Amino acid sequence: MSTHSAPAPDPAPGPAADALQQEPGAYPSGAAVKAADRAHVFHSWSAQGLIDPLAIAGAEGSYFWDYDGKRYLDFSSQLVNTNIGHQHPKVVAAIQEQAAKLCTIAPGFAVDVRSEAARLVAQRTPGDLDKIFFTNGGAEAVENAVRMARVHTGRPKVLAAYRSYHGATSAAINLTGDPRRWASDSASAGVVHFWAPFRYRSPFHAETEDQERDRALRHLDDTIAFEGPQTIAAIILETVPGTAGIMVPPAGYLAGVREICDRYGIVFVLDEVMAGFGRTGRWFAADHWDITPDLLTFAKGVNSGYVPLGGVAISAEIAATFDQRPYPGGLTYSGHPLACASAVATMNAMADEGIVENAAAIGERVIGPGLRAIAERHPSVGEVRGMGVFWALELVRDQETREPLVPYNASGPANQPMADFAAACKRGGLWPFVNMNRTHVVPPCTVTESEAQEGLALLDEALSVADAHTTA
Amino acid sequence: MSTHSAPAPDPAPGPAADALQQEPGAYPSGAAVKAADRAHVFHSWSAQGLIDPLAIAGAEGSYFWDYDGKRYLDFSSQLVNTNIGHQHPKVVAAIQEQAAKLCTIAPGFAVDVRSEAARLVAQRTPGDLDKIFFTNGGAEAVENAVRMARVHTGRPKVLAAYRSYHGATSAAINLTGDPRRWASDSASAGVVHFWAPFRYRSPFHAETEDQERDRALRHLDDTIAFEGPQTIAAIILETVPGTAGIMVPPAGYLAGVREICDRYGIVFVLDEVMAGFGRTGRWFAADHWDITPDLLTFAKGVNSGYVPLGGVAISAEIAATFDQRPYPGGLTYSGHPLACASAVATMNAMADEGIVENAAAIGERVIGPGLRAIAERHPSVGEVRGMGVFWALELVRDQETREPLVPYNASGPANQPMADFAAACKRGGLWPFVNMNRTHVVPPCTVTESEAQEGLALLDEALSVADAHTTA
Ligand SMILES: Cc1ncc(COP(=O)(O)O)c(C=O)c1O
Ligand SMILES: Cc1ncc(COP(=O)(O)O)c(C=O)c1O
Repeated sequence: MSTHSAPAPDPAPGPAADALQQEPGAYPSGAAVKAADRAHVFHSWSAQGLIDPLAIAGAEGSYFWDYDGKRYLDFSSQLVNTNIGHQHPKVVAAIQEQAAKLCTIAPGFAVDVRSEAARLVAQRTPGDLDKIFFTNGGAEAVENAVRMARVHTGRPKVLAAYRSYHGATSAAINLTGDPRRWASDSASAGVVHFWAPFRYRSPFHAETEDQERDRALRHLDDTIAFEGPQTIAAIILETVPGTAGIMVPPAGYLAGVREICDRYGIVFVLDEVMAGFGRTGRWFAADHWDITPDLLTFAKGVNSGYVPLGGVAISAEIAATFDQRPYPGGLTYSGHPLACASAVATMNAMADEGIVENAAAIGERVIGPGLRAIAERHPSVGEVRGMGVFWALELVRDQETREPLVPYNASGPANQPMADFAAACKRGGLWPFVNMNRTHVVPPCTVTESEAQEGLALLDEALSVADAHTTA
Repeated sequence: MSTHSAPAPDPAPGPAADALQQEPGAYPSGAAVKAADRAHVFHSWSAQGLIDPLAIAGAEGSYFWDYDGKRYLDFSSQLVNTNIGHQHPKVVAAIQEQAAKLCTIAPGFAVDVRSEAARLVAQRTPGDLDKIFFTNGGAEAVENAVRMARVHTGRPKVLAAYRSYHGATSAAINLTGDPRRWASDSASAGVVHFWAPFRYRSPFHAETEDQERDRALRHLDDTIAFEGPQTIAAIILETVPGTAGIMVPPAGYLAGVREICDRYGIVFVLDEVMAGFGRTGRWFAADHWDITPDLLTFAKGVNSGYVPLGGVAISAEIAATFDQRPYPGGLTYSGHPLACASAVATMNAMADEGIVENAAAIGERVIGPGLRAIAERHPSVGEVRGMGVFWALELVRDQETREPLVPYNASGPANQPMADFAAACKRGGLWPFVNMNRTHVVPPCTVTESEAQEGLALLDEALSVADAHTTA
């Protein structure tokens, strides 16, 4: 009944049809891919004239490869999103089946895969976080969590940590506590930054883990007192801060924040965009400390990024605020069917194949011990920290003074030591995740023991390049 | 080499595997879909306790249907995004092929489908808008356009129109000029609203089209003078405002805004998230007036929303700003391969099948004349306006006074006349797009003449319900 080949009536307005097809759409070589990329693709976070993007020909599991057939072991999980690895056959099949059935439908309808994706997420989230608002990614999830908290409390401010990343839309980038905020910051955005615990570079001059926790909580409590508790809608924290350095919080810290939030009627938001869905060896990082926030943001691992998807899991109390009163937010692709289908397949495959358990075991048995052994051998390694498949090596010029291998937010020549280290990894066939003076070891949750060992060996080799920049 | 079935070592932390699979994931009925939806899905822009979402079983071309087999002719294109109709076989096949090849890859790499999608968009955009920054949707496109304009000019403010919608993330919702802004507005966001031309309800008391244009330009110029031109980074306009009412601008207005922007060094942003990719009967609405903005935002029609995708097309001058200096923005899924593959297939199919030309012809030959004939018969129709497959009927209580059929931003009983009208459409098998006192006629660009006629007949019938609420 419906037709896809519409009649072509009058002469075309706009570009003539043949002008639209002059050039070939085929890309036989990496050079062709790159030429069109440099001509037309504007890249994130980059000086467009200074980048030289690698053209990728394919990917599978923990590997991807270029057009010369060079393979890379993916110790970055792209942007820490391919928790299930590349091209998991069950997820690919689910996308193909859903594409054949129903690619898109407006958010106002009910659809089987959306219902099921929400049910499966709600089943995994802690406590009573049983209503799911879907977005396209992490930043939109954070945007909506902040809006929910502000409308729910009627208060304007949000407290966020330095050494954090929450996304790049306006509210999300204002919350972010790393240099990516600076160009987009509006001091009037109602965001106040505080310091979260970080033993290795303690903002509180603490000497023990307990001291670090106690002083961090005192600092937060004092900041709230001076900002005015009744002005604060929410506190947002990455359960385990990701891009900022994988600082596993001291025991009791998150419980302390939960208690502070309860005391003042502040909404507690945990951002698990990077830490969630198996990355730390549990479904959510909050599970390690049995914490239930009021709102939990997710993206990345929920479907390994096979289709853009993110969301907010909402407590019963906050959901009730929007029971008779409209929730004032939305987006065209909320609960996108193709994205939801890939999330359902991902969550089911992760459960069926023990992928979260694998992440925990590989972290405990292979990566953790392996990195600690590496640290012994390299003067450039200041600290090893992490859990699951979520680890950071802090690279330093001097293990005593802990001076970072490169200064905070270095670029150009000042960043050369880290650039050299990253280049050495790539030469060896390891794709690293590098941020400031750190390298993160964040392979897929599906990584095997032998892949992990292979990656650690390559890392070990590349670190000699970093060692050369130490004072040792 | 890679493995997807990771070993299952230690007992699982987190929810036990069987607890995760107790309930069935199958949804045999619309009731089952809806029950899980109401239990777990949090919906956009809605009071969660007051909605009753229709469960959708399938869709094809210009139709979708529910679990009772009731079919609806989609005169809304969902949220005005399915320009190519539902389930276009070439786009479905492209998604399936890309899924088999490479679902996701980080934005930093070069990939064939991303290169090709950028090339095809750049080929269609006006003038020198040849660099494409991809996002997941319209709001993120607007966020990034605003950031580019602010960094490029070093100025803080953005001018946006009342009667507009630009998305729901923080910067985008502050720009929005409809009631959806109110709950999220921060008066300090650096946004100033002005009035754009709208003949039927002229903010300038104009009596002719030329007067409307001249007075609207004078109003904009005066507003700029009093805000301070050197404080204004950008003016953003929907080329043809969409959700706000499809007000086709008077001849010369956009050229006048272009001239004002040039005079003051202000970045001109055209938001074509809804108006672009065939909706108005051209690839871009700007083509009707031969206007080249500095930045053009798009989403929706670029791939009909089959996979979440949006973006910004960037002029050579603004792109050059970020040639040696990093662009301070990004997102995990910028240039997502699956989304880009669906965009390539959509743009090619639209060109091959004359779909843009079809939209123009159906608008000119069928919908325009059909709606004008309907207006003759119905005292509730105050005005018919539009182009292509982008039309609005302004419903009024009184054609003389032009009093809207329902007050601005009405809800509950005050909105009953429009609710009754929408219900009548749905009873008849027509899915309408309704906003305030308007119904929009926005079928897919692939709509056939007979489908358009069928929809117009159903609309004609349903309008008698609106007529009953007029004073006539
Ligand atoms: C913790 C956290 N929150 C939010 C985001 C933003 O997500 P997206 O890039 O999908 O917008 C990220 C991205 O890295 C993240 O790590
Ligand atoms: C003109 C315009 N801009 C931006 C948006 C926001 O797009 P999204 O819902 O994909 O964020 C819309 C959505 O309707 C729109 O119509």
